Amino acid sequence: MTPGTAHHGPAAVVEALLSGVGASRVLTDRNSRGSYARDQGPLTEPAEPAVVVLAENVDEVQHVMRCAHRLGVPVVARGRGTSLSGGAHAVPGCIILSLERMNRIIEVRPQDEVAVVEPGVINADLNLAAAPHGLMYAPDPASHAISTLGGNVATNAGGLRCAKYGVTRDSVLALDVVLADGTLIHTGHVTFKGVAGYDLTALFIGSEGTLGIVVGITVRLKYLPVETRTLAAFFPDLPAAAAVVQEVLRAAGATVEAEEGAEAGMLLDLRRNARGDGVDDDFRVGEDVAVPRSQLVHYAAELERIARDHGVRLRLVAHAGDGNLHPTFWVPRDEGVAGMSRLHAALDESVKVALGLGGTITGEHGVGQYKLKWLPWEQSPDVIDLQRRIKEAFDPRGILNPGKAIS
Amino acid sequence: MTPGTAHHGPAAVVEALLSGVGASRVLTDRNSRGSYARDQGPLTEPAEPAVVVLAENVDEVQHVMRCAHRLGVPVVARGRGTSLSGGAHAVPGCIILSLERMNRIIEVRPQDEVAVVEPGVINADLNLAAAPHGLMYAPDPASHAISTLGGNVATNAGGLRCAKYGVTRDSVLALDVVLADGTLIHTGHVTFKGVAGYDLTALFIGSEGTLGIVVGITVRLKYLPVETRTLAAFFPDLPAAAAVVQEVLRAAGATVEAEEGAEAGMLLDLRRNARGDGVDDDFRVGEDVAVPRSQLVHYAAELERIARDHGVRLRLVAHAGDGNLHPTFWVPRDEGVAGMSRLHAALDESVKVALGLGGTITGEHGVGQYKLKWLPWEQSPDVIDLQRRIKEAFDPRGILNPGKAIS
Repeated sequence: MTPGTAHHGPAAVVEALLSGVGASRVLTDRNSRGSYARDQGPLTEPAEPAVVVLAENVDEVQHVMRCAHRLGVPVVARGRGTSLSGGAHAVPGCIILSLERMNRIIEVRPQDEVAVVEPGVINADLNLAAAPHGLMYAPDPASHAISTLGGNVATNAGGLRCAKYGVTRDSVLALDVVLADGTLIHTGHVTFKGVAGYDLTALFIGSEGTLGIVVGITVRLKYLPVETRTLAAFFPDLPAAAAVVQEVLRAAGATVEAEEGAEAGMLLDLRRNARGDGVDDDFRVGEDVAVPRSQLVHYAAELERIARDHGVRLRLVAHAGDGNLHPTFWVPRDEGVAGMSRLHAALDESVKVALGLGGTITGEHGVGQYKLKWLPWEQSPDVIDLQRRIKEAFDPRGILNPGKAIS
Repeated sequence: MTPGTAHHGPAAVVEALLSGVGASRVLTDRNSRGSYARDQGPLTEPAEPAVVVLAENVDEVQHVMRCAHRLGVPVVARGRGTSLSGGAHAVPGCIILSLERMNRIIEVRPQDEVAVVEPGVINADLNLAAAPHGLMYAPDPASHAISTLGGNVATNAGGLRCAKYGVTRDSVLALDVVLADGTLIHTGHVTFKGVAGYDLTALFIGSEGTLGIVVGITVRLKYLPVETRTLAAFFPDLPAAAAVVQEVLRAAGATVEAEEGAEAGMLLDLRRNARGDGVDDDFRVGEDVAVPRSQLVHYAAELERIARDHGVRLRLVAHAGDGNLHPTFWVPRDEGVAGMSRLHAALDESVKVALGLGGTITGEHGVGQYKLKWLPWEQSPDVIDLQRRIKEAFDPRGILNPGKAIS
């Protein structure tokens, strides 16, 4: 069969689902299907799901996968749909498996510095639960107040604290995963170290729902910092700002202000929301490339050149300590197709230049649907083939989030 | 064919190897085969290799794998053979692929805080090369002066600094890997962050030579600490020592001495060599379990009880901050079979109790050949099956280190 092509009509799928999930949580109306059809990433191939299931426990997830596997129906899992790469966009006729209701913090174990959560728990909520114990969950994507830990795991999310504490993979010890055929497995270890068998935990992390459905997450917590400082530094231009990262704020020519309290909080929020997604009289696309840190200065200058060459506007925010940049390119919406075409040419070139410097097409957002076109620029045919063989070993019917994450 | 069973005699294998590797580095004499037949782990199934190849570059490794794949001959890769789990023991009629001569540090890039090395580089040698730049390679197994980075990657090695800096996996960014059929691939990214595709790098790390041959390693370096302190604390018994770990050396009842310089170095060496492997008028086996840290006190007491119950002696060293313990059990050699039997009963019970507390059979040494018997105690049949499917996707002929690492 063609991966991801249902052999059964929506009615048969819904009937099968209803035998294991309460009717009020199996949604087939047009509004529900529409509101679960996409995430926050660019929409390249609009598609409608056949049905949306709001799962409330592991049994229901297993039931959904057993039905999907038997009937050959694609399944797109999602948390709160905050992906910026289209990883949670619907594919035609799919089951949207929403895990947002599986949002219990099962336990926080301060003595072991671990917590066990369901995938629908909001990142910030786990931090609220850990804080009374003097602990925190370190990875903090900009979406931390609205994104789920399941989604963070699916994309191996980064964040502002990653330069010090590492990314999601570095904080996840163990997973409960429902496989394509409904089998529930447990991977990893509650201990800080553990090397028994293959690192299946790392393999699921960042696999964007294409290898299994994560239904339980054991994370390692870290001690809350005793004190934090927020520093605002102002530079005349991008290359000068990028250069100072190498000098770790010995700050050649910068105006530096140490900020405290509410002012510091505001600055952090400004940074988190700096992609400007709220404005919509422009066509704009944000990127997520990373380069070796020594290339930051050069790459920042290249981005400005690319914007000039293609006649597009540029705003740049970065996790500069990581070499992870989020350039946003945009053109006024009234420039129509010609503007869009220039925008895409600029994006393509920005990606190509990053790869040429030893970089990657995605530092922390994931490939999803949107960045698939660039993946073969980064990965060799042999690597692509190896990933396809892994995918087949996990999901022989090709029903798990087809057309995402891997070529 | 039966995995790992050669269909061709040693002469045909050697002839094929000689077409791509210089004759002086294709060893078939009894002495060479004997000296490469085992590592430092317990020997459960003595076996002789057909031939030993001392590879000097990637081309030669690819040639070896192409020959082995065509002829269906098992290949056991090794660095310096310091595994404590039998991961590098020969299997009958295999090619031993020694990577010890691939020991070049290709580059240290201080601006990017990365280094690129061949697999035969000794762990301590990389640290010597990084130190002038104020950098270090953090994972430091007790064998750091004699073990190779390739071996460290194969076992996802830990060490004394891991409580702060993480294990090998946390310091490896990218790998060059020769697959079972001789194909060379590159995984991962030189950037600190990168989420394009599946985390093949993590999958190879800790896979003990069963998925591919690592021929190049890009590691992330860390800043050398500005100052280090060594503290020696003396307790009346094991449970009291274990208890203090939870209190992070608030040291209830301990005698604490801060050590400096040569004295501190001696203490660290004592810790590194504390397994007492040099003495051989005893049967002794060292273990490598890990437990959630809150269980450390209880488990230390359980180990003492187990030693008493089975009439064996016990010495315990630990990475207590990680919950990773290395109990060594022993009996006098002159107690013969009866003593060995008590020893194995004690080992089995120590592993069972650790698993019962939420622990793992191996914190950092790997499963190898020796711990295979315990792996099904930790992993479910479904996980074992999933690992077997991954293995088949990577190595359909089953020639890579058969009978190791996974059930």
